[in-house]
Amino acid sequence: MKEILDYFKDDLAMTEEIINNNIHSTIKVIPELSQYILESGGKRFRPLMVIASAALCGYRGEKAHIAACVAEYIHTATLLHDDVVDESDTRRGKTSANSIWGNEASVLVGDFLLAQAFSMMVHHLTSSSLKVMAQVCMHLAEGEILQLLNSFNINTTIDNYYQIIFGKTAALISACCEVGAILSEARDKEREALKTYGQELGYTFQIVDDCLDVTGNPKKTGKPSGNDLKEGKLTLPLLTTLKKASKEEKRTIQEAILADEITPQLIQRVKTIIMNHRGIEAAREKAREHARRAVEQLEIFEESLEKHYLTKVAFLSAEREV
Amino acid sequence: MKEILDYFKDDLAMTEEIINNNIHSTIKVIPELSQYILESGGKRFRPLMVIASAALCGYRGEKAHIAACVAEYIHTATLLHDDVVDESDTRRGKTSANSIWGNEASVLVGDFLLAQAFSMMVHHLTSSSLKVMAQVCMHLAEGEILQLLNSFNINTTIDNYYQIIFGKTAALISACCEVGAILSEARDKEREALKTYGQELGYTFQIVDDCLDVTGNPKKTGKPSGNDLKEGKLTLPLLTTLKKASKEEKRTIQEAILADEITPQLIQRVKTIIMNHRGIEAAREKAREHARRAVEQLEIFEESLEKHYLTKVAFLSAEREV
Repeated sequence: MKEILDYFKDDLAMTEEIINNNIHSTIKVIPELSQYILESGGKRFRPLMVIASAALCGYRGEKAHIAACVAEYIHTATLLHDDVVDESDTRRGKTSANSIWGNEASVLVGDFLLAQAFSMMVHHLTSSSLKVMAQVCMHLAEGEILQLLNSFNINTTIDNYYQIIFGKTAALISACCEVGAILSEARDKEREALKTYGQELGYTFQIVDDCLDVTGNPKKTGKPSGNDLKEGKLTLPLLTTLKKASKEEKRTIQEAILADEITPQLIQRVKTIIMNHRGIEAAREKAREHARRAVEQLEIFEESLEKHYLTKVAFLSAEREV
Repeated sequence: MKEILDYFKDDLAMTEEIINNNIHSTIKVIPELSQYILESGGKRFRPLMVIASAALCGYRGEKAHIAACVAEYIHTATLLHDDVVDESDTRRGKTSANSIWGNEASVLVGDFLLAQAFSMMVHHLTSSSLKVMAQVCMHLAEGEILQLLNSFNINTTIDNYYQIIFGKTAALISACCEVGAILSEARDKEREALKTYGQELGYTFQIVDDCLDVTGNPKKTGKPSGNDLKEGKLTLPLLTTLKKASKEEKRTIQEAILADEITPQLIQRVKTIIMNHRGIEAAREKAREHARRAVEQLEIFEESLEKHYLTKVAFLSAEREV
């Protein structure tokens, strides 16, 4: 990824400036809490997608940096609201905002960031971009609600899982790419292609995230491993495993999901079951399939450095280990 | 108010239809929870203000109903998020949404309503209305955060109080009236007048709410009395009382604010102190002053039934007992 980040270095730096310059408020806790969560080592993956998609279609400039900032604010707001939802203690390896400032501040600063994103869009972007972003906010809320409804639910299906990750991840990454095309005044065909590229990339991204929750090194990923299980989230590695598991293995998994306090031993037993049924490999293969579908969408574009990089982003996302 | 509600009966009925028709989702909890809170006897005061302000400037029609619905969704979303913040058990006399569905669902359905409001604005309203509404969302978040920061703070000033109620109440009512003017393509002078009218009306409305928290009959207001004290909110009746209170009375008030579990006896003692210093009368007088200022703004408009009603709304708001 280093090479890609280098190529868009200036755009990303300008986006960073916009991100930092728009959280001012006379109320100190707003910039404090916002900065804290915005600086918590986020990859700025969504901003990169806006910038790279716009560049692919021929536009590099301020509107892309603003839209990139808007995407990051929306994403950050959902993290803040999600922290409340999950009652998480850590986020990206650091103590979560809500356990320092309280649930209340997390909700309200999330609302502030949403309002700021909304305000920036209204002042700087066109109606088509606004419509895409409005729609994505609904998908985000729906995705998070679906996730909540399916948590600790042993009957969650793979269809449910896809609905959830569409809402919570794929929809926003898709919108980032689509807005990139809109900023460049690209043709409908290109806009559609980037929209689908982003959606498939989003699936890749989230499925790999869910694999890393099982196999990742907490020191590298910044997330405690086995977290999804603790939060009662049934993700693709587990769902594919459940299809193949024996009655007894299913019972162990059920016990783990429904446990009031899950022990490290129980987490380890579930991990072993997943490994034995090659649940990670199956999920990684799915992630690769989505990455391939993402890349197929780029076929309509002429060869360019940007196309090369977007292709690489998709394949690297499927293989990443952090 | 009955006469005013009658006059705008058809507009309010159409707004109600829009309010009910835009909370659909394949996810059942969204319409369920939304309906529950939207039906909890809200006065639809904000929708009425959009409709009446537009009518004053000569416009009655669908755009006013949509903007009215947007205002109610935004207001409802802040109630849902505020319930999380306050850890309230009741809201408008009914069990609060978060104690039935949980904090998580309240936050997320609030987000859904905000997203829906945003989407409706983007599709149906002009850029000027959007800018006003984006700004108000920031004020709302700031107001709620300020309230949080000042809760249980014995050093809250009357200036702090006004900043809080501007953000949490006056800004949105002001925006409702301003958007009414924008929809009618009113001149800047009229738009400004309605913006200020709404702000002053908002102050009136909130100050009276805070008086009713001390003196109101819970059966009529639908809110448990003394709630603000329980939540550590220092409101105008108490703040004006604190200025006149003896050292011993101040100590009682401080004890009440900082108590881990406030007893009904302690609430009663604080109420008695407020009464003895005529704190309610002082706050009501302030409310009347704001109502007069609101009405002054209407002077630039020619006489009309709408002007008559908006005048009446302001004066009635200052005197209301529920």
